[in-house]
Amino acid sequence: MQKIGKFYYLFPQTVAVIGVGQNLMPAAWHTPISADPPLHGVLVSPKRYTFELLKKEKGFTVNFLMHDQAQCIAKLGSTSGRDIDKLEQFNIAANRAQKVNGMIMQSSYAAYECEKSDMHEYGDHFLVVGRIISIHIPDELLREEQTVDEKRVLPALYFGKDRYLTTDPDSLTIFPKK
Amino acid sequence: MQKIGKFYYLFPQTVAVIGVGQNLMPAAWHTPISADPPLHGVLVSPKRYTFELLKKEKGFTVNFLMHDQAQCIAKLGSTSGRDIDKLEQFNIAANRAQKVNGMIMQSSYAAYECEKSDMHEYGDHFLVVGRIISIHIPDELLREEQTVDEKRVLPALYFGKDRYLTTDPDSLTIFPKK
Repeated sequence: MQKIGKFYYLFPQTVAVIGVGQNLMPAAWHTPISADPPLHGVLVSPKRYTFELLKKEKGFTVNFLMHDQAQCIAKLGSTSGRDIDKLEQFNIAANRAQKVNGMIMQSSYAAYECEKSDMHEYGDHFLVVGRIISIHIPDELLREEQTVDEKRVLPALYFGKDRYLTTDPDSLTIFPKK
Repeated sequence: MQKIGKFYYLFPQTVAVIGVGQNLMPAAWHTPISADPPLHGVLVSPKRYTFELLKKEKGFTVNFLMHDQAQCIAKLGSTSGRDIDKLEQFNIAANRAQKVNGMIMQSSYAAYECEKSDMHEYGDHFLVVGRIISIHIPDELLREEQTVDEKRVLPALYFGKDRYLTTDPDSLTIFPKK
């Protein structure tokens, strides 16, 4: 039996970089929530600048980055938009999303545009639920049924305490149902 | 711009095998929710047998498996506890959890015991929030500050459409805060 402690370090998590207004914040705590309607949830601490922005705005973006962008993720995660303009400070190329007030990073391999559908407090975080209204991903990264090419997409995975790694495409195994 | 479709296939996700009563169900949609209190959330469709069980029970387990158990995960995910006893059918060695009515798989590298704290409907799934009351993980898999040894733990990651892969420990990069 172990102490509960940092229970969330026990498995790696992809990073979702949340864009609200001009600001970007990486979140390792996020998950799909519903297939139809398409909902994605992100956990945000009420201490965060992004939380203030989310209360005011009607939508946000979710950017998915590859492992070669891990240093950028680390910088975005260790600074606050209250103190600096992260886009300018870290020279991040990004475009305004088409339907919501948030940024799409040019270095993202995929991104969602989400309408804010709910914010619900659980413990020390809020679950921010977004309804996905647009998806950006280059066609050449996709394979059948909207799966991504595991050889081309090497996602940033956070494994706790400033450690990032990625997937091993050669480990791919397929177990067809029946 | 892409169709929304299977938006949840665009990034890999660790698998959490949820244990309620004698039953086990893998869930790729799960996330930490709060550090203090320690809350973990799992998305469960109301169509699932596990959902029926969760409504009645006061707690559940969350089992984390390595990639070499992917075939077992696939079997658990393509069958229902309404039809079969999965433990018996698939010869899965598991022990009753100490504090809740759920199973801890002997093949898991880590597991939580959770008290059910909330069930909330979002779209076509329910978010089941568990308060973690116990953690099981062998000491030899842990490093400083409860991070796991990336060379020993090769977790099962689900990448959509029956595809599983794992992490590449040699890709580890550390970006210390300042």
